[in-house]
Parts: sequence; structure tokens; C-alpha cells
Amino acid sequence: MGVTPHPGTPVRRSLRAPDVDKLVEDACAGQLRAVSRLLSLVEEGVPDLPRITAALAERPGHAHVIGLTGAPGVGKSTSASALVDAYRRRGARVAVLAVDPSSPLSGGALLGDRVRMQEHAGDRGVFVRSMASRGQLGGLSRATPQALRVLDAAGFDVVLLETVGVGQSEVSVAGMADTTLVLLAPGLGDGVQAAKAGLLEVADVFVVNKADTPGAEQVVRDLRRMLSLDHRRGGERWRTPVLKTNAVDHEGYDEVLEAVDRHVAWSATTGEIEHRRTRRAGEELDALVRAAVTRRLAGLRGGEAFRRMAAEVAGGRSDPYSAADRLIGSLLS
Amino acid sequence: MGVTPHPGTPVRRSLRAPDVDKLVEDACAGQLRAVSRLLSLVEEGVPDLPRITAALAERPGHAHVIGLTGAPGVGKSTSASALVDAYRRRGARVAVLAVDPSSPLSGGALLGDRVRMQEHAGDRGVFVRSMASRGQLGGLSRATPQALRVLDAAGFDVVLLETVGVGQSEVSVAGMADTTLVLLAPGLGDGVQAAKAGLLEVADVFVVNKADTPGAEQVVRDLRRMLSLDHRRGGERWRTPVLKTNAVDHEGYDEVLEAVDRHVAWSATTGEIEHRRTRRAGEELDALVRAAVTRRLAGLRGGEAFRRMAAEVAGGRSDPYSAADRLIGSLLS
Repeated sequence: MGVTPHPGTPVRRSLRAPDVDKLVEDACAGQLRAVSRLLSLVEEGVPDLPRITAALAERPGHAHVIGLTGAPGVGKSTSASALVDAYRRRGARVAVLAVDPSSPLSGGALLGDRVRMQEHAGDRGVFVRSMASRGQLGGLSRATPQALRVLDAAGFDVVLLETVGVGQSEVSVAGMADTTLVLLAPGLGDGVQAAKAGLLEVADVFVVNKADTPGAEQVVRDLRRMLSLDHRRGGERWRTPVLKTNAVDHEGYDEVLEAVDRHVAWSATTGEIEHRRTRRAGEELDALVRAAVTRRLAGLRGGEAFRRMAAEVAGGRSDPYSAADRLIGSLLS
Repeated sequence: MGVTPHPGTPVRRSLRAPDVDKLVEDACAGQLRAVSRLLSLVEEGVPDLPRITAALAERPGHAHVIGLTGAPGVGKSTSASALVDAYRRRGARVAVLAVDPSSPLSGGALLGDRVRMQEHAGDRGVFVRSMASRGQLGGLSRATPQALRVLDAAGFDVVLLETVGVGQSEVSVAGMADTTLVLLAPGLGDGVQAAKAGLLEVADVFVVNKADTPGAEQVVRDLRRMLSLDHRRGGERWRTPVLKTNAVDHEGYDEVLEAVDRHVAWSATTGEIEHRRTRRAGEELDALVRAAVTRRLAGLRGGEAFRRMAAEVAGGRSDPYSAADRLIGSLLS
């Protein structure tokens, strides 16, 4: 094995190599139970992950990952459902991955998502799954790219990556998508708030939901004005569209899908897609390196050498920074 | 220098070596402005810290660190003030370090502490300071031991380490003390809640405040029963006393100080004091190692080798776990 589980993770029996291969094979054949099991293994951070990840890497699919983010109350769940519906009418297979970076436990909002998604229950072209951080720092930076790899290998055409909230981690998870939709609604998260939350940088398409509510036009105008002031993007720049929807009545989604199509084409032409996927892999690598360092440090802390060094620092016989430098050295040996 | 500031820390001009020596010398001579300046440098995580830390390590004092923790509303600030008063009557010089692990910004609770501490304003034997985490993960695990070292070198007899809240980080900071007082009050944080929060393990002395309120006796009885069921401590075990105070009227503090004295004597006899100070240094070393890894990783991420590796992972040409292993190798080179 050579890889121990993340500290805090319940110790699990390892799968045998043929079991991993079978599981990956079944998932790639589109068996949703196998997909679900793999996602659980990814979420739990089991010792088998290096083997699973390597097996999945050999089976790349063609999924386009669409990020969906916005403040609570803008209608994110109904919008996700309407988007799923629109893609299903095109015949695409769709997976929804709802991620909650702020809650260590599976929160109420995600449960709500699952319940509302029940309009797609029984549709075998739709797969819905939520994932929480389980209190592990950086857990989602590792688990999200790995979960996307599972869903990609399983042959989904579209993966909706939905995040709850608009904190920094939500924006960072949303930034892992190939195309990011930012949802706003009149009275909830206007343009200025979106800018403050760093959503202006991360949005490829702005969607103003609840378009029939008073104030929707104003939100659209504000956003367009702010976008026209945004001179940061150079070269073959993408002009972020601002669209209006009414998620409850599934109105406006043809335009949203067209905008996503245009962004897909633009990303392919400009190389933006490789750039983003490289960035996503970079987040994953960063998280894997940190997790490995945490494991090795936890191992060191249980040992006599660490205790002796700490005792020397406590007794004033050793300087903490020099001791830390020596520890870093032994982390790699 | 060799040490770069923590990412996210505003870049500061380094002090010249003679300035650091002068600052440490002035602080050790008891100049409170120098103490205050050193604590700011510790809190900000400036590049000079290795030099400051080494200079301080050569000047150990004799401070006893008393942790003070408990749920909001139990009267932590008035208790801190009453304790300061009791130690001042003994002629001891007292520093109060109020730490808020949960708030990235200096919060209202800490401001409140400072205001209430004004009864000691003008008393040059009392020094009050609050410290927040400034949003840096693990920041307080590094900064708290370093701040304690400053206050120790500055010659204080007693350092009150006060934490706000009863989350896991609060308990962990409280556990850095030589003697930890856990405050409870009728109706606020009963014995069962204290046990759940992990306070039973961390408490050396239980103080039930608001002793004249109905229900205080019940809290005392509950705690004593729970402590009698606690069979974990073996050897020369410390029998955690449960005392009653009325902080507003400064009642009951002779008994609290006596209990602390007995704990100091017990800690010295059993070697518990070295054990705790070694643990505190271990927390500091852990935090320093992590901070150094974070810095080096941030450096790597800006480079071409990292980008190339991430691109290989994104393109399925490289397995993320093997790539992460190679990155860990280059972290040390």
C-alpha cells in the first residue's frame, strides 16, 4: 500500500486490486451504483485512492464541467434543476455534484437540493450527489477534482458543479469548472456584492434569476456597466454575457445553453480549457502535497525525535526555527 | 534573512539586527512599549521572527501560564480581572493575553475585555493584550507560544491566557497553559456540556462562577460526580478541584490561587510542567513546519515545473499521486 489514510479518517479495509479495477470498469460502463461507490471512496479519502485515481486517469471522458454559484436565496437549486432539464432535452447525460465547503457535515441546503432534484428521479440520464468537507482542511480541494474525474470517466456529457454560499472557498471550488455560471437575483446579491465576493473574476456567464421580479432589469444594467469597466482581460477576450432566467418556469435556458456552447467553443480556440484544467490539477496537487505533509508530520509527532526536539525548545536549549528546519529535513527522509 | 513572510502577510521592512537586540533588551528590562511592539511583530508574523525568537530564547523568565476558558456569558472577563487583582495583592506582575481563535479580526468580545480591564489601567504591574488569528490557519498555534515567550522574557510572574469561546481551537489554546482554569456558571455550560466540549480533559481547576445564583450548587455536584467517574488519569494523579467564585464581588479567589499553587507544586514534582511545555513547543514546531511548507509550496506553484506537472495530470499523461510525490521531493531541494 504505502499510503496511510488521512488523520481523522476512520481506518478502512483496503479494497483488493481486482475490486478496484472492477469498480472502475463498472463506473465507466455507466453503472450508477459503482459511480456512487467511487464517489464515497473519494469523499472518505481511503487508502485506495492512488490506485483508483490511476485507473480512472486511463479512462478520460469528455465531460464539460459547469460551475454554478451564487448567494443563498437566488434560486440555485431550481436553476440547477432547470439546467438539468434543458440538457436532458438535448439528450445529454448530466451529473450534479453539489459541494458545501463551509459545512463539515452534510448540511440542510444540500439535502434540500436532493429533495428538489427529485423531479429527475427515475431518469437514468441524471445523477445527483452532494459532498461536504467533513472538517478536513483542504479536503474539497482534493476531493472535488477527483470526484470530477470519476464523473468524467463515467461518461457524463455535462457535470454541474454546484456550490453553496459565496465565501472564498465556494468561489475557489466554482473556479474549478470549465465554465462558471454566477447566479444573481433582484435584492439578493447585486452587482456590487458580486464584485466584492470576487464573482466578477470567476463568472463566465451571469444569470439573473427571478427575471419577472421588480429590479431584475436594474441588476442586469448594473452588471453590464461593471463588466464594461473591467479591462483586465486582454487578448482574445471573452465577453461575459448577462442573461435572464425564471428558474421556476424553466424560462431562459435556451439562451443559457447557447452562451455555455459559445464559451466551450471560445475556450477550445483560445486554449482556456487546458489552462483551467491545469489550474484544477494544480489545486489537486497542492492538496495532495499538503495532505501527505500532514500525514508525515503526524507520524513524526508520535516519535521520540520530535519529542526530544520539542523538549529542547521548551527548555530553551534549542531555537524553534532551527528545530523546525531540521524537522522539515526529516519529513522527506 | 532566508525566511520570507507568510503568504497573505503584508510585506514589512525587516528590522536591523541591533534594533531587534535593543527591542528584546528593553522588553526584558520590563519596558511595556517594547513588549507591546514585540507582540505586534509576533502577531504579524514578520520575517524577523527567527532572530527575535532566538534572542528571546536566551532570556528565559519564570512566568507561570494560567489558561482561562469557558463558554461566553460565564463571566470570563470579570473573572480575569478578579484573578489579576488577587495576584496583584500578592505583589505579582501579571500579563493577560486574550486570544480569539475563531475570529479573523479583533472581535467585540476582546474589545470588551480591554474595556473591563480598565480597572487596572495605570497599574504598571499589569499588562493586557489581545490577539486574533488574522485568518491564518494555524496562526495562533505559532503565535501563542511565541507571545508567551515574549511575556516570560519580560519578567511577568503570571500570564493569564484567556480564550474566547469553547470550540476545539479554544480548548487547544487553553491546553497550552501550565495550569488551566475552566469557568462554568449555572445555566451556562453545565458539566455535561463541558464534557462534550472536551473541557473535562483540559481542566486542572474548575471554577463555578456566579456562585450566589440558583443552580450553582447543582453544577458543582454534577462536576464532582463526573470527575469521580474519570478514571483515565493514572499514577500520581491530580484531583481536579471544583471551586466557587463570585467574580463581580471578587469572592473566592484566595481558594482559586491556593488551588493554582497546589497545581504548580504538583506539576513540578511529577514533571507535568516539563511535559506541558514540551507539548506547547511541539505545537509551535508543528505550526512552523506547516508554515514553511506552505511558503515553499507557494513558491513552487509560481514556477514552470509545477505548471508542467499540473498540465500532465490535467491531460491524463501523469498520475496525480506520483506527481505529488515528486513535488514533495522538490519541496526540500
